[in-house]
Amino acid sequence: MTSNVIFQHRQRFQRVFVRSFFGLFTEYETPKLVVIHSLSLTILLRLMQAILLIYSILYLLLYEKGYQKQDTSIVSSVTLKVKGIGYIHTAQNGTLIIDVADYIIPPSENNAIFIMSSYGQTDQTRSKCPESLLLKEAECDNDDECQNKPFSPRANGRWTGRCILPSEGQISNDTFSKTKPSKGLCEYAGWCPPENDEASPALINEVLNFTIFIKNFIEFPVFAVKHKNMVDDLKPCVFHANLSKDCPIFTLDYIVNQAEKDAEERDLMLRLGGVISVKLDWDCDLDRGIKLCKPEYTFARLDVPFREKPFSRGFNFRYAFHWKSTYENHRTLTKAYGLRLIIAVSGKAGKFDSITLSLNTGSLVGIFGLATFFCDIILLHLSKKARTYRKHVFEAVHLRTRFSSVLERPP
Amino acid sequence: MTSNVIFQHRQRFQRVFVRSFFGLFTEYETPKLVVIHSLSLTILLRLMQAILLIYSILYLLLYEKGYQKQDTSIVSSVTLKVKGIGYIHTAQNGTLIIDVADYIIPPSENNAIFIMSSYGQTDQTRSKCPESLLLKEAECDNDDECQNKPFSPRANGRWTGRCILPSEGQISNDTFSKTKPSKGLCEYAGWCPPENDEASPALINEVLNFTIFIKNFIEFPVFAVKHKNMVDDLKPCVFHANLSKDCPIFTLDYIVNQAEKDAEERDLMLRLGGVISVKLDWDCDLDRGIKLCKPEYTFARLDVPFREKPFSRGFNFRYAFHWKSTYENHRTLTKAYGLRLIIAVSGKAGKFDSITLSLNTGSLVGIFGLATFFCDIILLHLSKKARTYRKHVFEAVHLRTRFSSVLERPP
Amino acid sequence: MTSNVIFQHRQRFQRVFVRSFFGLFTEYETPKLVVIHSLSLTILLRLMQAILLIYSILYLLLYEKGYQKQDTSIVSSVTLKVKGIGYIHTAQNGTLIIDVADYIIPPSENNAIFIMSSYGQTDQTRSKCPESLLLKEAECDNDDECQNKPFSPRANGRWTGRCILPSEGQISNDTFSKTKPSKGLCEYAGWCPPENDEASPALINEVLNFTIFIKNFIEFPVFAVKHKNMVDDLKPCVFHANLSKDCPIFTLDYIVNQAEKDAEERDLMLRLGGVISVKLDWDCDLDRGIKLCKPEYTFARLDVPFREKPFSRGFNFRYAFHWKSTYENHRTLTKAYGLRLIIAVSGKAGKFDSITLSLNTGSLVGIFGLATFFCDIILLHLSKKARTYRKHVFEAVHLRTRFSSVLERPP
Repeated sequence: MTSNVIFQHRQRFQRVFVRSFFGLFTEYETPKLVVIHSLSLTILLRLMQAILLIYSILYLLLYEKGYQKQDTSIVSSVTLKVKGIGYIHTAQNGTLIIDVADYIIPPSENNAIFIMSSYGQTDQTRSKCPESLLLKEAECDNDDECQNKPFSPRANGRWTGRCILPSEGQISNDTFSKTKPSKGLCEYAGWCPPENDEASPALINEVLNFTIFIKNFIEFPVFAVKHKNMVDDLKPCVFHANLSKDCPIFTLDYIVNQAEKDAEERDLMLRLGGVISVKLDWDCDLDRGIKLCKPEYTFARLDVPFREKPFSRGFNFRYAFHWKSTYENHRTLTKAYGLRLIIAVSGKAGKFDSITLSLNTGSLVGIFGLATFFCDIILLHLSKKARTYRKHVFEAVHLRTRFSSVLERPP
Repeated sequence: MTSNVIFQHRQRFQRVFVRSFFGLFTEYETPKLVVIHSLSLTILLRLMQAILLIYSILYLLLYEKGYQKQDTSIVSSVTLKVKGIGYIHTAQNGTLIIDVADYIIPPSENNAIFIMSSYGQTDQTRSKCPESLLLKEAECDNDDECQNKPFSPRANGRWTGRCILPSEGQISNDTFSKTKPSKGLCEYAGWCPPENDEASPALINEVLNFTIFIKNFIEFPVFAVKHKNMVDDLKPCVFHANLSKDCPIFTLDYIVNQAEKDAEERDLMLRLGGVISVKLDWDCDLDRGIKLCKPEYTFARLDVPFREKPFSRGFNFRYAFHWKSTYENHRTLTKAYGLRLIIAVSGKAGKFDSITLSLNTGSLVGIFGLATFFCDIILLHLSKKARTYRKHVFEAVHLRTRFSSVLERPP
Repeated sequence: MTSNVIFQHRQRFQRVFVRSFFGLFTEYETPKLVVIHSLSLTILLRLMQAILLIYSILYLLLYEKGYQKQDTSIVSSVTLKVKGIGYIHTAQNGTLIIDVADYIIPPSENNAIFIMSSYGQTDQTRSKCPESLLLKEAECDNDDECQNKPFSPRANGRWTGRCILPSEGQISNDTFSKTKPSKGLCEYAGWCPPENDEASPALINEVLNFTIFIKNFIEFPVFAVKHKNMVDDLKPCVFHANLSKDCPIFTLDYIVNQAEKDAEERDLMLRLGGVISVKLDWDCDLDRGIKLCKPEYTFARLDVPFREKPFSRGFNFRYAFHWKSTYENHRTLTKAYGLRLIIAVSGKAGKFDSITLSLNTGSLVGIFGLATFFCDIILLHLSKKARTYRKHVFEAVHLRTRFSSVLERPP
């Protein structure tokens, strides 16, 4: 390659480059359009475009707020405060007061609270005693049956190998008087006496009049917006669906009624325990101002209804207070039945966002092109005069191609 | 229809089909473009395209990381460990040690912790005693006033119907010496004596020197990535904004100072309790490696400041230890004031994702078409030479349509 | 302007408007297409289109379910129930029963549970006693060394200023017999005696046979769908990866084995405590029915393995039971080691959604245009016959523009 050729090349390249560059700023390219006079097809196209336009603008952009960046990640903090005093009638015709320190166990939980509505208590010491009557496998006639007995997970302790017979008097007569007076019970070492599951637990009165104050603080970290479920000038109040919708203090009666419509089930929930979800749902339109944003409270029962005879019914747990006196270990074992409220906070916030609007608009422009796409197919391939139209729309360029010259003849 | 016609039909269909099929792979269709030499319009188009291109590439794709799949759903586990020993000065000039087993109530919570900073204690037994002086409705002059009294939710127990007068000596003189010595108080059955809310609670010293170790384990399930807020070779340390940013051990002093700038409010928070949100915010660019991803700690006060005289101020709750001696029920009721820390973990992770990039690019191509769309409108309808341009751009096809033949005449 | 001119203007405007309006419904515009017979280019275009089509339809729409609105915000409520009885062998060859009320501390937590597997207990009273041997700074030879000693956060109480020597007999001989018999220990006022950290804690047997029943109730608020992890006809069962996958009752043995493969580590976890995350991952295709949606259980260890000798190892905390007798304060301080299970629920639900499908289709149409875009560039600028093609595709319109008339001459 001589330098002359290189020079010519370079010159030609420069000329092309300069022309392209000027062309870039002076030559406006636009597709040549063929105008076809067809009433039916045009109306079809306009109709499709109109539908897509209305759907796009009204539904996607306005109704579904396609112009807003939406976010459902919410940071929530909840504190709960229960007030009220309950009482139970004791066997000796007395009254036992159960106050907030007694019925809230443990004293504080995160996003949950347990309010005891019924309980059974057993004072126990570490010693030896016959098993509970309810444990069928503990029944015995003599010590042999209790020896080498395998450890049962349902037992209240380790077998000592002795069989306590009713006559021995170590056990209260009424335990045996009910059933099988002839049978004895194996002795165990552990917390004595065993819990009496048959005794019906004591129901705490006035539980439904307790009030619970739900303080919820939320933040939408994506929008850096904070809010709470208490109005600025909150006064002592009780929530009412119509009269005081902004009050975050609920009576347990309201909560339980909302969660369960059946009165019999409600009564069983207080006796045997239940789990209720308290849902606070925030739907915030940040374009309208955060102050207008209020949570919606929903109370729903989580445990399986008693009428369905579930495998695991109600809600209860055991806890104990321990103490020692004269070197003996004592505890008061409480089997607590009650309402467990689990607070769940969910939320959605939307705010005008140019990026979301851009991306959604871009998608909509794409959708809009679909109308033209389908109508073009009809025009050029499916309509009666498709062949005629094609002649006008397509402009064939014939260049050394064998197939085409054979196949594409004017009809 | 004769078989001949069918044969002809089929043959014709075959010919069309073969031609279409070959055409599909040999005929390249591209819109015919009209090149219009117009400096102003071309520059306008290029400018719009440039702006959209820069906006798309720089802002949407690079700054907002449009090439990343972003996800804000985070699975978080937190364990907390508090260290430190506090003490209070007792009335008898002694010192009472309050250690971790005393000031953390309950001993563990999920995503939260309560650190008692002040408390009032009352030893109670189940018996009968006069009501608290603070309960105005319990005041009486004789037994009649106390009989048939309705059960008050603010009362400490059930009314017995007796009115205890100061002279009876059953109540300590100083209770009555303060106010209204002539009035008596109705007797109740419940936990006795009533809690003395007027006595200022004892403030625990050294609380601000306690340290809290926040262990946070996170996972972004969408990306199957796990991480924790502790560096691999963690050593005993205390967090400092500049000197040790990677240390997850904070003094309470630092936390309270971050959450509340006002010294007086801080003091009241220790005396009357407060709620502080501890936010760990993870913003992870998984393309850069998970090891570089560290949480940002933010401490904010959740309860309403005392200076605003809120309806419900501070944070406190009651809990009790129960025991029995000589068949009497005893409890130590503690009204605990303190700092409740609520841990909230939020996070965002982004990782290169071809699908997200595709969808975003698709949207951007759509946006890009907008520039041409607007310029075409200007060219063909709004510019001075629109009529001339239209003549070149539109190629009318006249086919039996009545309206059009009437309306569309060459101007 | 005369009224005649205005009339003419108006008339002309009306004519244009009427014509435009009729044109809108009768004139169908479609781009004029140039058909170029080029086998290679057409095949390239079809190939690109085919790839994009297959990718779009198969991958984006079907595999990634681009036709579904996906949401990862889940509202979850968890209740846990542990069953089982453990025991420890005491020094006096006895057996101490540890039941559910003893080993679950606190009795209920939200989304977490602590199961004590090992513990050390110290009965303490508020009095004065020598410091723990483990606190090196408490060693002394005479009272002077204990006076004006600064308050140490590691100390068990406040220094009284006295030095208790071994000879004084106030401290058990074996405390001193081990180390440095000649040295004394400073006396402190607080809970006495100090906790003996050196004594190895008692390991509770049978812990691995405990069963834990995980009840999880979920809701996808975006789709208003509720579900739970229990089948309708749940019966007593134990989870097995193959045999009973639907059973939400797990043995601790299974959980610990899943979380940690190393037997030695597992043993240390029971002795020194550990943190295990229990993850329930819901992936629900709501188009197929919510009943088919089941969670996947994953158990992972959160604390740093003991073999890595971490800064903070295991998991333990202290709690105490308080009581009073004859005006003395007593407490049983328990240092509890055990397994802390933290429940994390994550989920994803997808449901057919016309909006999502629209937006995704719009994006895909945009992507589809990319194939034409690239092929056009090849056709008009990079192919050998680009100049010939350009002549056919571009139709130049020459109007008073200086540059262009100079630059754009027919080649």
